[in-house]
Amino acid sequence: MLVTNLFNIRYLCGFTGSSAALLINKESAVLVTDGRYIEQAQAETGHVAIHQARSLHQGIGQIVATSHVEYEPTHVTVAQFDSLSAVLVGKTLRKSVFTIESMRRLKDASEIELITQACAVSTAALHALVENTLVGQSERAIARKLNEYMIERGADGPAFEAIVASGPNTAIPHHQPSERTLGIGDLLKIDFGALVQGYHADCTRTFVAGTPTTWQRETYDSVYSSNAAATAMVADGVESASVDQCARGVLDSMGRLDEFVHGLGHGVGLAIHEDPFLSASDGTRLTENMVITVEPGLYVPGVGGVRIEDTLVVTTQGSCNLTVFPYELMDIS
Amino acid sequence: MLVTNLFNIRYLCGFTGSSAALLINKESAVLVTDGRYIEQAQAETGHVAIHQARSLHQGIGQIVATSHVEYEPTHVTVAQFDSLSAVLVGKTLRKSVFTIESMRRLKDASEIELITQACAVSTAALHALVENTLVGQSERAIARKLNEYMIERGADGPAFEAIVASGPNTAIPHHQPSERTLGIGDLLKIDFGALVQGYHADCTRTFVAGTPTTWQRETYDSVYSSNAAATAMVADGVESASVDQCARGVLDSMGRLDEFVHGLGHGVGLAIHEDPFLSASDGTRLTENMVITVEPGLYVPGVGGVRIEDTLVVTTQGSCNLTVFPYELMDIS
Repeated sequence: MLVTNLFNIRYLCGFTGSSAALLINKESAVLVTDGRYIEQAQAETGHVAIHQARSLHQGIGQIVATSHVEYEPTHVTVAQFDSLSAVLVGKTLRKSVFTIESMRRLKDASEIELITQACAVSTAALHALVENTLVGQSERAIARKLNEYMIERGADGPAFEAIVASGPNTAIPHHQPSERTLGIGDLLKIDFGALVQGYHADCTRTFVAGTPTTWQRETYDSVYSSNAAATAMVADGVESASVDQCARGVLDSMGRLDEFVHGLGHGVGLAIHEDPFLSASDGTRLTENMVITVEPGLYVPGVGGVRIEDTLVVTTQGSCNLTVFPYELMDIS
Repeated sequence: MLVTNLFNIRYLCGFTGSSAALLINKESAVLVTDGRYIEQAQAETGHVAIHQARSLHQGIGQIVATSHVEYEPTHVTVAQFDSLSAVLVGKTLRKSVFTIESMRRLKDASEIELITQACAVSTAALHALVENTLVGQSERAIARKLNEYMIERGADGPAFEAIVASGPNTAIPHHQPSERTLGIGDLLKIDFGALVQGYHADCTRTFVAGTPTTWQRETYDSVYSSNAAATAMVADGVESASVDQCARGVLDSMGRLDEFVHGLGHGVGLAIHEDPFLSASDGTRLTENMVITVEPGLYVPGVGGVRIEDTLVVTTQGSCNLTVFPYELMDIS
């Protein structure tokens, strides 16, 4: 099997560079990389041979000895397929049905430890952030401070560009922090996480600056009810689609399902979004040691929005929340 | 034409979200995206229609009215091709020969302005960094400080994870900052850049802590000679392969060509590495308003390495260096 996705390569052999391919058969594994990464590959990998090549595809062509190669159809582009075909003359390229992503869904103890660290750093940084006077600060300034706090507490960096949205911007699910300043009466939605040794945290909390309006309070309570009901359902053996259905059912009963415009959640690990996905179309049965998010939200364009998100480890009894932070609608003015 | 690469989509219509496809014909353009990004798409784009769909491929299937669609073979995976074929029944999918990347090679005035800003922020941060006592600090601490300085000076963030390598780690071209502390006698190699409104800077300088050894001095001078000769060749009308050849020729004349293990340079813009590439196999003729790097290096495993890199705008007369910072081997102890 030819593995070309860099997260999958890191997962299988530990290599963290930006250019490589990994060839695996039952007996052995060979990592193909270029001159920039030979020393790093030797330091990071254990049981794989290392083959240096200026071009990955030429390197692959030099070492494939089998009559057929399985490749990752979700990662190999049409142009790469053509290029591989050209260097693998006389050999058969087959789409792999098996995915490394299906292995990555189940985290081992060391992976859960790193995600736990990333989540702990994240919530500690959020606690420190809300100690500040945030009213009058721009979304960008708030995002920068949050990043600083995560790095001071041991993060290698942010897991992704933090979403810091204030006032009407909270209606934009993936808002990019702007120069808008937080004012009294605004909601403040923060979706963020820390990165620790390649592993991600993902957490969202929504705050209010001042006394919430009836709409803000009701919207918050609806999202929280949806989050709590869905989280309570998470356990080994439960279909991810039924958790999604549960979260939607709560919002539907309030007549607000059309304001929930994205999936309920996703796996978290070496990638910030990875298998399994919590949606109607995903056929995953949740299993012990999967790490997932649960993140319902409601968004009304021009008015505002609320999202509440945790990162959870699936257990036999239910789930363990790694992003422990109060759920009450907190007035941060 | 179906454009799926997010940099290409941003280039063509301004949309900066993380999930979209852009369909273009001679008369019009339609951006397909999901519910998370509708408001953002309306705010960021001007002359394109917006089509909301939970799945991009279903959305594409809903709006394609022509008998054939050209797609980007370097960005569409084999699995995506299969999925597109399934939603475009009765229509022909063709590989586009034309690439948006070929348009992106030539920067307009506003793009050059943003790259210039990103480079100015970068070199200002590096000047501030070397004012500190760096001996005794870890590579990671130095990288963090550099990131802070860039953000304080107006960067949206780092253009990529800075490479900060000390002592023997300088032999690793793409070293990831570690806990190793800079000591007297070490080389210090810093490859970094700022990100400003989506545009990247890329700059490398190598310093020494204390008085350089003969090997450090000679290696530095060799790399600088190679950099200077290649940079002097850059101009509108010159083949990028011949600039690469020039840089290699200087190192070859010193008997050290085998220590130069990567390409000479690359285009810089919305992506940190983009067309054109400065290598023997690239057929690009440099043209006014391309923005490229020139970055020769020498690396001796276990001993050390040096790289000197600038970001240049190609002009009719030669080039304009955007990463102005002294070339002397600076003692930062």
